[in-house]
Amino acid sequence: MAIKRIAVLTTGGDAPGMNAAIRAVVRYATNKNIEVMGVFRGWWGLINEEMKLFNHRSVAGIINQGGTILKTQRCHEFDTEEGLMRAYENVKKHGIEGLVVIGGDGSFRAALRFYKKFGVNAIGIPASIDNDINGVYTTIGSDTAINTALAAIDNIRDTATSMERIFVVEVMGRHSGFIALQVALAAGCEDVIIPEKKYDLNEICHSIVNGNLRGKISWIIVVAEGAGHAPDIARQITEITTLETRAVVLGHIQRGGRPTAFSRTLALRLGEAAVECLIKGETAKVVSSRDGQIILVPLETATEKKEYKEYKADEIYNLIKSLT
Amino acid sequence: MAIKRIAVLTTGGDAPGMNAAIRAVVRYATNKNIEVMGVFRGWWGLINEEMKLFNHRSVAGIINQGGTILKTQRCHEFDTEEGLMRAYENVKKHGIEGLVVIGGDGSFRAALRFYKKFGVNAIGIPASIDNDINGVYTTIGSDTAINTALAAIDNIRDTATSMERIFVVEVMGRHSGFIALQVALAAGCEDVIIPEKKYDLNEICHSIVNGNLRGKISWIIVVAEGAGHAPDIARQITEITTLETRAVVLGHIQRGGRPTAFSRTLALRLGEAAVECLIKGETAKVVSSRDGQIILVPLETATEKKEYKEYKADEIYNLIKSLT
Amino acid sequence: MAIKRIAVLTTGGDAPGMNAAIRAVVRYATNKNIEVMGVFRGWWGLINEEMKLFNHRSVAGIINQGGTILKTQRCHEFDTEEGLMRAYENVKKHGIEGLVVIGGDGSFRAALRFYKKFGVNAIGIPASIDNDINGVYTTIGSDTAINTALAAIDNIRDTATSMERIFVVEVMGRHSGFIALQVALAAGCEDVIIPEKKYDLNEICHSIVNGNLRGKISWIIVVAEGAGHAPDIARQITEITTLETRAVVLGHIQRGGRPTAFSRTLALRLGEAAVECLIKGETAKVVSSRDGQIILVPLETATEKKEYKEYKADEIYNLIKSLT
Amino acid sequence: MAIKRIAVLTTGGDAPGMNAAIRAVVRYATNKNIEVMGVFRGWWGLINEEMKLFNHRSVAGIINQGGTILKTQRCHEFDTEEGLMRAYENVKKHGIEGLVVIGGDGSFRAALRFYKKFGVNAIGIPASIDNDINGVYTTIGSDTAINTALAAIDNIRDTATSMERIFVVEVMGRHSGFIALQVALAAGCEDVIIPEKKYDLNEICHSIVNGNLRGKISWIIVVAEGAGHAPDIARQITEITTLETRAVVLGHIQRGGRPTAFSRTLALRLGEAAVECLIKGETAKVVSSRDGQIILVPLETATEKKEYKEYKADEIYNLIKSLT
Repeated sequence: MAIKRIAVLTTGGDAPGMNAAIRAVVRYATNKNIEVMGVFRGWWGLINEEMKLFNHRSVAGIINQGGTILKTQRCHEFDTEEGLMRAYENVKKHGIEGLVVIGGDGSFRAALRFYKKFGVNAIGIPASIDNDINGVYTTIGSDTAINTALAAIDNIRDTATSMERIFVVEVMGRHSGFIALQVALAAGCEDVIIPEKKYDLNEICHSIVNGNLRGKISWIIVVAEGAGHAPDIARQITEITTLETRAVVLGHIQRGGRPTAFSRTLALRLGEAAVECLIKGETAKVVSSRDGQIILVPLETATEKKEYKEYKADEIYNLIKSLT
Repeated sequence: MAIKRIAVLTTGGDAPGMNAAIRAVVRYATNKNIEVMGVFRGWWGLINEEMKLFNHRSVAGIINQGGTILKTQRCHEFDTEEGLMRAYENVKKHGIEGLVVIGGDGSFRAALRFYKKFGVNAIGIPASIDNDINGVYTTIGSDTAINTALAAIDNIRDTATSMERIFVVEVMGRHSGFIALQVALAAGCEDVIIPEKKYDLNEICHSIVNGNLRGKISWIIVVAEGAGHAPDIARQITEITTLETRAVVLGHIQRGGRPTAFSRTLALRLGEAAVECLIKGETAKVVSSRDGQIILVPLETATEKKEYKEYKADEIYNLIKSLT
Repeated sequence: MAIKRIAVLTTGGDAPGMNAAIRAVVRYATNKNIEVMGVFRGWWGLINEEMKLFNHRSVAGIINQGGTILKTQRCHEFDTEEGLMRAYENVKKHGIEGLVVIGGDGSFRAALRFYKKFGVNAIGIPASIDNDINGVYTTIGSDTAINTALAAIDNIRDTATSMERIFVVEVMGRHSGFIALQVALAAGCEDVIIPEKKYDLNEICHSIVNGNLRGKISWIIVVAEGAGHAPDIARQITEITTLETRAVVLGHIQRGGRPTAFSRTLALRLGEAAVECLIKGETAKVVSSRDGQIILVPLETATEKKEYKEYKADEIYNLIKSLT
Repeated sequence: MAIKRIAVLTTGGDAPGMNAAIRAVVRYATNKNIEVMGVFRGWWGLINEEMKLFNHRSVAGIINQGGTILKTQRCHEFDTEEGLMRAYENVKKHGIEGLVVIGGDGSFRAALRFYKKFGVNAIGIPASIDNDINGVYTTIGSDTAINTALAAIDNIRDTATSMERIFVVEVMGRHSGFIALQVALAAGCEDVIIPEKKYDLNEICHSIVNGNLRGKISWIIVVAEGAGHAPDIARQITEITTLETRAVVLGHIQRGGRPTAFSRTLALRLGEAAVECLIKGETAKVVSSRDGQIILVPLETATEKKEYKEYKADEIYNLIKSLT
């Protein structure tokens, strides 16, 4: 029997392209005669019944906006039996037959718990600037965040070159150096420090001092936040080399901004795919895209710790060093 | 026996990321103790001996620059027996054992002719904003060009919405609507006209007039240059609907600019791969990357007319229409 | 006696910063306990009573958006006695005691007519990408438009340099070369063609050919739309020099986009000033800023043909030529 | 008697537009048949004779590049008698009749010392992202830096709004809140902390909590680096309000990047003016532009502590609060 009403929500950290995904879910479903409730502030809105029926116009003009018009919020109440129950009652009350959950692994973990407890179906759309969702090749927002970090480092390069300074730039990446490696490669950085790989600061300093003797004085080292804190590393480099070293922590500027073409088209295609999943009766899946193909990943898989087997940290690291 | 000296050149239209590719070829080879001659103005420079030995420093500071420091030029002389012969003499004279040719299908056709005639090995690196090279999933520069066109249409959308106007925007794409579809999807455009698909302007106008009656008055239609000329289409729409319609031809602004992260990392990886091909004795290949894997495409294949079998024009077109 | 309710509207072509001006008018007035009606689609909305009471939240999140949330529209009805009368009736009906009119000289002409006929006070805020309002040093939006055109020419420069081509780039400016000169200077262009100055294409071509002989082959000529059409000029240059010459018409991409800091702060300050004018009983003025000071210009003056006495076309032109 | 040879150098922190100024100095002088020596690494290069004759081509393609091709460096040796003497000997040896010094107040202080000691004439071009030079209305680079900071805060706003968070963003400005006020105003920030004005964190927190009760939960507070450190202030806000508060320190990303149109045209005009000063025999001046007019400021004046009398901190501060 045809599905009549679904709900869409965003949870976890915002990522550029979330709005494009919301637009796709609302418009694609509406055009298939499925009603869409927009739930505000993630799980909190489901518990507190903060939601409303969206139509075609509700999502006009948002495709190129960062952040999420549905807002997002942490919600500890959803970790409790009572919270889940209240959410379930609202789901029943509003006749919601399936959820589209746009967010990261934490979001999917909550969705899975909800599904297991009350059988409320949920399809996840992976959106996270960290690209840290298991089984998912690329998340919505990561291409944008990489380009934002890259533009920042391009700026820093102007000063590094002009003033012949050493810079340590901290980028996102709590558990993996995936982003740091991409950014360091694209920005032509001299070195990169990532969680997956032991690093020897003495060796790095040795290279710097050697470069210095050969006349190469500016140096940019990218560090993934999970591998170290830029100001600490900068201080150590100064201690070892006696060369002035500056630290920049890019932080939250990497999270917002206009989504790139890639982040948008990915979001739109996954939005379509998520609605299609609900129509076809798929349960508890995350939609992903690889090589132009839609791939369904079980929520179970997507909530496990990401294995970075595909991303070949060593290859990229070696390439960075080969091009320095 | 180990290779000792290679040459690198750019030919055809410039594309953002060419400089990153040059940087990778020069540095990767140099670090492997292979000398690299930089040839200026493409085949013309090979014929006229306009080239010089590059070193590590020759390619400093270019990774984020559009265009090509080697310059590029059409060269009809390379179509002649005499031109090929002169080029060959310079190759011999300078002890060049292999060429890295950065460019499009025309560049590869010339490289193939040269290879067949004199056995001068050439490895092609696909760089073209049009993404129109057969057997190659994505070319260097196309991600940048798509994002540039997207930013332009985001700007136009401000006016289209504010003044409630119809716009026809012409983007690159002589033989295929690949780029037009990507841009139209990402920009949330209402319609798209591409060479692969017949279009009925009356039908488009019918949608516009219908939308108008429902209160939807702004409209952006993307047209691939190979499918029609924006000013002509705008004029016809005005004639049919009597509604004021404006045309914008994006033209050459799509060709330049800072390469995106994707265009840069692709360029760097293909630069490395091209040198590796020469080291390993591969002949007459184009290096390509798909899904993180390097793929070698015979020059023969890459010079054929691109088959767009993979890009699923209908799917994207339908998605655009589903989200309007 | 204190003013209680005003209305704000945007008319004429949209310009980046209009939304920031709307925000300032609404918030500044509201904080002074003055109600603000937002009128949609300019004069048309006043005639057709399409307006609503705005509050603090109505203008949230628009400060960095191009275009105008109030929309804008040509309205021939406002040229008629009947149109003016209907507008006046709505002004009375809604207790509107003053208008803030955000737009260009055409908008101010209409406001002046309305004021003279029915005594409805209007304060103008000059917003126009062309910077073509008499007595006004800088209009909201022109700094943004100049930067947008500049970024486009930076892109074109990549190709002009790489392919050693001649480009003719058409920028806005129907009546004056002010913008063209700013852009040509900032982009390092080789020549500029403006309405205020006769040009001799033979002389330009002579410089090109001479440059060519000295090895300078790339060339960018900026033309103000009021002085000529880029494709025509490009064709003539090719005829005279036999050198391949390309034309780009920037067109509507110059109109939208995120306003620059300057366009925003100007808009915010003028929004405040306009409300202050209404509070203080100023009538029929345009607010302007020069050198950090607010200046009031009579609507009469602002609707006259702009005299470009201050902008010293010759000086800038000569500087461009001195730096080539 | 006509001047025959001058030198140009950049010192102090780099600023976007320095390269445009170098271009203007070199080309304008060369076109007037004055030779220009480019001195590398500021005063260090003058002492160590690291300089070379520049020509027209030496400055090609740099107009839109951040940083400085002449590089810049601190030079304690120039604080010594011996350093000054060595520099003077090089000035004599190379027949340099005047210096163009592009930099900030520290640079001008050194130039003045050199002038007083040895009578070497110097004309200063004010370039500093901080806009902190006395007697100078606007410095080269500050418009660019403001726009860079603004874009960063626009990004942060996406997250602040989506996650309903409080952010404290630290921008440049060691001695003045000029930049912080411009950025806070243009970005629509809720509050701003500057060195010139006492602030009461309890009051700010009171506003936040009050806003919170009314439903306004996101909040961005800009702090000038001279008035406090963002992480400290964020911590205090969390302590007082118990609301999660994030800090971002923009740091060095504000220093580089492509110069805006304004920064470029200012640089080009001041470059021309500096050369004109040397031609006309002006001594020990800084060139400045206000309202389209070139103004000469004595080096003495420009090295004093900036009086911010013109910038009306209170007015802008009040406007920010009026628009919140």
